[in-house]
Amino acid sequence: MRTRKTLIDRRNFLKASATLTTAVTGLGLLPLGGWAAPIPGAEAEDNINLIGPKAGYAPQVGTLVSMMNWMRHVVLLSLKGLQQEELDYLHDAKANTIGAMLMHLAATERFYQAHTFEGKQWGDWSEQDKQRWTAASELGESARKTIKGHDLQYYLDALQEVRQHTLDELKKRDDQWLLAVDKKWYWGPTNNYCKWFHVCEHESNHNGQIKWIKGRLPR
Amino acid sequence: MRTRKTLIDRRNFLKASATLTTAVTGLGLLPLGGWAAPIPGAEAEDNINLIGPKAGYAPQVGTLVSMMNWMRHVVLLSLKGLQQEELDYLHDAKANTIGAMLMHLAATERFYQAHTFEGKQWGDWSEQDKQRWTAASELGESARKTIKGHDLQYYLDALQEVRQHTLDELKKRDDQWLLAVDKKWYWGPTNNYCKWFHVCEHESNHNGQIKWIKGRLPR
Repeated sequence: MRTRKTLIDRRNFLKASATLTTAVTGLGLLPLGGWAAPIPGAEAEDNINLIGPKAGYAPQVGTLVSMMNWMRHVVLLSLKGLQQEELDYLHDAKANTIGAMLMHLAATERFYQAHTFEGKQWGDWSEQDKQRWTAASELGESARKTIKGHDLQYYLDALQEVRQHTLDELKKRDDQWLLAVDKKWYWGPTNNYCKWFHVCEHESNHNGQIKWIKGRLPR
Repeated sequence: MRTRKTLIDRRNFLKASATLTTAVTGLGLLPLGGWAAPIPGAEAEDNINLIGPKAGYAPQVGTLVSMMNWMRHVVLLSLKGLQQEELDYLHDAKANTIGAMLMHLAATERFYQAHTFEGKQWGDWSEQDKQRWTAASELGESARKTIKGHDLQYYLDALQEVRQHTLDELKKRDDQWLLAVDKKWYWGPTNNYCKWFHVCEHESNHNGQIKWIKGRLPR
């Protein structure tokens, strides 16, 4: 039921944007040559359901950003109203808490920033990054011990802080950078687009687990 | 550990593609104007880790296809070696089996095909589609009762059959179609790119649940 449920959740969530409909009316007629142009108003939260180029970004970079924004929006729908005890709930000895998974998403994004924006080899992180993000990145026992006792806003703030830096850095980059290939990446020759698409779909992977746990929270 | 684990899994999986490295050497120098051109060899399975335009597709359509191919590749890594009893394993009364989730992915993609390629309203499916895909689409009780007793190949064949039709139809469409907005979509004005990106990330959502169940299969 996930797809259907998401639709219904999102319909409620986006009622407020109904009035924006007219802002995108012309889109169906957008000429193919218009690809380099941003979707009118696509940078507005109200048009988060339009994937494509965005004002302030190179065409394909903006398309990636629109996907990252939409994916984050879907994750946030899963988190609405979660209390600290729910964020700290451990379903079984092998499980990760929802809170730990949220920090894991922020940690993953931070490490991909250091790797793709700062040219660091995977794992060659600053002491500051290691101290803040290693447990969240690894999940498991270290995360179960150290990531707990926070309210939802704590996790949302961490996610937003990291995401803002990603957007600031992506604004400076072009589509040539997005396509540039890392021939030494250890899952095989890979471009920055693939690395950042992974950061994006990785949120959906954990959102599936977050919803699984939400469906089993003690009442 | 999901990211790390995925990297390691994929590294093993892609050892065979190491020799392809040279085929993408020039990419870092791809001019921005080259965006309309496919990534050299990007249509080859060996270069599945290159997200971007692909031969035989419009530039942004091909980029979406490269994401769908990569995402499916990641899901397949989770499925390697799963036996029928593992595909039928029900972790608790509310859970879905891995097999049912795989049919759910195929069903979701089939319904988005009917909606976006055939212009059908959501739910207005042919009798043939209803009979084959409704239980898988809804998951829950109906799926628990009816989707079982199949080996992995059964699910892989269903996924591949549906995916091939998606690729055949996307080959016929341009980036203007991908950007076309459905103003009546009930989560808000949405373009085909967003609908198909959802089909793609939805595989990651369930892959997260598949991996959660895999980690808890009875030994």
